[in-house]
Amino acid sequence: MANLGDFRRVADDVRNWGRWGDADELGTLNFITAETRRRAASTVRTGEAYTLGIPLSLKGPQDGTGVPGRINPVRTMLGINVSMGGPEAAAYNDDIVVMPLQAATHWDALSHVSFRGVLYNGAPADSVTTAGASFGGIDAVGPLVSRGLLLDLPRHLGLERLPGGFEVTRALLEECEEAQGERAETGDIVLVRTGHIQLLHAGDVHGYHRPTPGLGIDTTLWFSEREVAAVATDTIAFELLPSTCPEIVLPVHVLCLVEMGLLQGQNWDLEALAAACAADRRYTFFLDATPEPFAMATGSPVSPLALR
Amino acid sequence: MANLGDFRRVADDVRNWGRWGDADELGTLNFITAETRRRAASTVRTGEAYTLGIPLSLKGPQDGTGVPGRINPVRTMLGINVSMGGPEAAAYNDDIVVMPLQAATHWDALSHVSFRGVLYNGAPADSVTTAGASFGGIDAVGPLVSRGLLLDLPRHLGLERLPGGFEVTRALLEECEEAQGERAETGDIVLVRTGHIQLLHAGDVHGYHRPTPGLGIDTTLWFSEREVAAVATDTIAFELLPSTCPEIVLPVHVLCLVEMGLLQGQNWDLEALAAACAADRRYTFFLDATPEPFAMATGSPVSPLALR
Amino acid sequence: MANLGDFRRVADDVRNWGRWGDADELGTLNFITAETRRRAASTVRTGEAYTLGIPLSLKGPQDGTGVPGRINPVRTMLGINVSMGGPEAAAYNDDIVVMPLQAATHWDALSHVSFRGVLYNGAPADSVTTAGASFGGIDAVGPLVSRGLLLDLPRHLGLERLPGGFEVTRALLEECEEAQGERAETGDIVLVRTGHIQLLHAGDVHGYHRPTPGLGIDTTLWFSEREVAAVATDTIAFELLPSTCPEIVLPVHVLCLVEMGLLQGQNWDLEALAAACAADRRYTFFLDATPEPFAMATGSPVSPLALR
Amino acid sequence: MANLGDFRRVADDVRNWGRWGDADELGTLNFITAETRRRAASTVRTGEAYTLGIPLSLKGPQDGTGVPGRINPVRTMLGINVSMGGPEAAAYNDDIVVMPLQAATHWDALSHVSFRGVLYNGAPADSVTTAGASFGGIDAVGPLVSRGLLLDLPRHLGLERLPGGFEVTRALLEECEEAQGERAETGDIVLVRTGHIQLLHAGDVHGYHRPTPGLGIDTTLWFSEREVAAVATDTIAFELLPSTCPEIVLPVHVLCLVEMGLLQGQNWDLEALAAACAADRRYTFFLDATPEPFAMATGSPVSPLALR
Repeated sequence: MANLGDFRRVADDVRNWGRWGDADELGTLNFITAETRRRAASTVRTGEAYTLGIPLSLKGPQDGTGVPGRINPVRTMLGINVSMGGPEAAAYNDDIVVMPLQAATHWDALSHVSFRGVLYNGAPADSVTTAGASFGGIDAVGPLVSRGLLLDLPRHLGLERLPGGFEVTRALLEECEEAQGERAETGDIVLVRTGHIQLLHAGDVHGYHRPTPGLGIDTTLWFSEREVAAVATDTIAFELLPSTCPEIVLPVHVLCLVEMGLLQGQNWDLEALAAACAADRRYTFFLDATPEPFAMATGSPVSPLALR
Repeated sequence: MANLGDFRRVADDVRNWGRWGDADELGTLNFITAETRRRAASTVRTGEAYTLGIPLSLKGPQDGTGVPGRINPVRTMLGINVSMGGPEAAAYNDDIVVMPLQAATHWDALSHVSFRGVLYNGAPADSVTTAGASFGGIDAVGPLVSRGLLLDLPRHLGLERLPGGFEVTRALLEECEEAQGERAETGDIVLVRTGHIQLLHAGDVHGYHRPTPGLGIDTTLWFSEREVAAVATDTIAFELLPSTCPEIVLPVHVLCLVEMGLLQGQNWDLEALAAACAADRRYTFFLDATPEPFAMATGSPVSPLALR
Repeated sequence: MANLGDFRRVADDVRNWGRWGDADELGTLNFITAETRRRAASTVRTGEAYTLGIPLSLKGPQDGTGVPGRINPVRTMLGINVSMGGPEAAAYNDDIVVMPLQAATHWDALSHVSFRGVLYNGAPADSVTTAGASFGGIDAVGPLVSRGLLLDLPRHLGLERLPGGFEVTRALLEECEEAQGERAETGDIVLVRTGHIQLLHAGDVHGYHRPTPGLGIDTTLWFSEREVAAVATDTIAFELLPSTCPEIVLPVHVLCLVEMGLLQGQNWDLEALAAACAADRRYTFFLDATPEPFAMATGSPVSPLALR
Repeated sequence: MANLGDFRRVADDVRNWGRWGDADELGTLNFITAETRRRAASTVRTGEAYTLGIPLSLKGPQDGTGVPGRINPVRTMLGINVSMGGPEAAAYNDDIVVMPLQAATHWDALSHVSFRGVLYNGAPADSVTTAGASFGGIDAVGPLVSRGLLLDLPRHLGLERLPGGFEVTRALLEECEEAQGERAETGDIVLVRTGHIQLLHAGDVHGYHRPTPGLGIDTTLWFSEREVAAVATDTIAFELLPSTCPEIVLPVHVLCLVEMGLLQGQNWDLEALAAACAADRRYTFFLDATPEPFAMATGSPVSPLALR
């Protein structure tokens, strides 16, 4: 449990403003270098591939209780077997979608959250207008490739999944890491499995929303010390919800996005990957989670690929 | 140049129906195995990363002359610095987009084109309804990772870019491959550079549309012989447009998607990658081009990542 | 209560195919003439005006249980106080919406429903393609202006509103009409009030969906005899739901749209108008319910205006 | 011709702030009373009806050169002949649209334009947020019904249409009014025909955009003196474009929307109505132009109905 005072102390501790220059928009992605990526590729042993994105459809995780307008993707056909010409001509099928960029498996861009009038690195919150984010847009990210490290918390605890309202602490991350036997390194993308997405797979969209297990405030200290590049989870909220710091509503969002400049991923499906990792007890892998380059967007769908 | 008779002979030659079973929806992706992916990862030398997607915005390649309704992406803000609660609360920014799935850098799914009432593998064209494609949807693809091979045609020919209307032939692909010194292998994803996307970068959206340089009919024979898994280009049409087989309008689409079951990629930006390849004369690399898992969609945006 | 046999007898009775020619797309709107409209205008006494459309917003009547993709309208800002130029320049605000055409207060076009492969007048169901309805599109309607007649059923019955599952019968329509003292005439637009929309106003979106009170099969005989031009209600389903003829699912839709060629309106808010009519016991009025001219659409939002 | 000084003098002259109370959001719609509407209905002689909306489709007036994101409406099918159940069941057709609210025939709400940080009545410009307009939204309007008065300028001048760049002056409005023989009265909705929409009908979308004929600054003095309730035209810009007061870019927008609180209509098709008016020389009629009640929107499509 944490309170507003804890939040402030942690914020002061993890803040990265100015660390990579006053104009920096990459934050902890600066921990990823060409060498990091090269080593990430070298972790591939068998070539087994796992996609971590959930299906994009009307049956997605949105239930109308979150951000107003965050609907599930509505895809329709622009044409069905429309002839391109005469009797011999080919015919096309084509589709169009309406979707919030944070509707399903996605990255929050650093511009996704502001706090006390500022974004990461102290950039003014009004960098975001109807034109989008002129600072911290998802298109600033470019390639997002590194070594992935899965922390499979429910398996470590002997649970099918963490219960709603379960706070993931720094201590638990460390315990799990040690038990798994592979240590987080500079530039890693850490995937924190709670198993909560099982509710979504079972059709319990409302249960998936609240309460959720999730990251507590002090986990950001660990992310900071280990120089993690980005973190993703298998819940809709990323952090514990309701949080232990209700004044701020989403304190871990502020700590990651605003203070650290660390990208957050939500609604990542880690179930199949986790089963594979457990089977041969290898919890690190090559991970490509390059976002779609939406210009000036505050987030993006992503179709993450893990290769072992 | 080719005519309808040529088209038919080529179609008979490259057709893969039944090759991987009557229910197969993967087509030439079957050439990719775990071993293929493992070897792809082993090509990484320096860790340099290149994203091949063009920015997703109103300034995209659509000009209203193609498929009706294929607009450029329209992204708007669901909220700008909206407070989540009281005076201490964080604030969110969030966005929503309307976009055709084939608007920018994308894969055509095998269900994108039908010919004489059938899709790939002889599946009925009416597998596609307003619900989407129950056969050959992009969500059938899963991970799309392999070795990439760039064929840099303009550099080989000493041109800045291939001119509009230039037909890329099988002979040219073979020449370029030989000159570059690396041979296409089973399961490779071949990226055919024409340089035509320079027009888009220069703001000439109409010129980017027509005429385009592109793949001619006989290139599919080469794709077939080399057991290529997928092919992408830096043009909007993939193939030569206007085509040499106007009765069919898009004959190479039919050959790839319907006859072979080979995924096509369009609007891939190969400029920076090509410069890097030319610099050290290494034309193969690790490539992740996993599509977004739109359920039952006939195509998908993709944010391809090349790692060298 | 009715069964499939009743449905067939009624269908044979009310069918208008060929009545106004084999190419007719207007159906019972043919009952409205310039003279009808002139007399409608002459009913205006006081100039009191009532709008019958519900607000278009995320808080609309859709709850995700109806037609897949029928979301509530999502409106976002294209620009907020965007300067048009230099320091003296005006600034604009501008918005864009995504909405199903039948999401809120709307007309079903005659092409909205097909039955056994045909639309109204025997037109083939495949007149509707991804391009829209080449027969019976809402844009065929043009001006939709006539005298309106309100049948205020709950007031007649001394109820606040009709309960869910209440079948409105022909006998009840006739009783109410007689009690109110004004008789339906050729070309009238009949507004059938159930009061059910009170649930929507109270925020009970799910209750608004099912069960609903609504029109039973035999009411169409009365619409037919009186030569009514169009009918609208204050429910989401128009007809009784669940219906008494479950094989057909929506039998009154078939009778009105396919057999008679009679436009149906749903989600019309009749509360304020009904109070005014009750106050001075005048139940007829001028009504303009011209649809938005969406080309080839199978329905349209409408902002109906009643003038007394 | 006018300059910035003229603009300021006119602004001071026509300003209605506080006239109907400090909280007023209706502006000159306050000129319309029940009596105005009653008299409007009494102008109906023959019952001829004219709709003034242009078709809503991809072939609309937007050409990508205006407000970013103002596309033409994209309508797609949510379902085509989708069976509702078993073998006897009816089947539905249903559609969804993406459209800017000001894409075609529309009203600008009073919140559409701000000037020097304020909206009409001095309301703060930041009344408009991503939630929409909390002041001056189109949903504040309610019924918009009155007598219409057509000023048929090209017919008066013996032209097919006014040429691009033609400034409509107060003097011309007065001349035309006098020649037509019917005087604008308090509460009238004035329809100013230029004939420019003929370019759109002829497919010249670009020509329709610029240059346009349109209202000059001094016409607002006449609107003010005559106590006109609202004004609509058959151009995309309403006012002369390029304007004679380029510092402000759209000075007449500021004068009407911000200073007077007068609703503006654009892209109204007055061709058929004008021919009818000319035939019997009656230029006044009943007009219903009630907007769609989009909650907090800064404009709305409208399907205006004129009844003579």
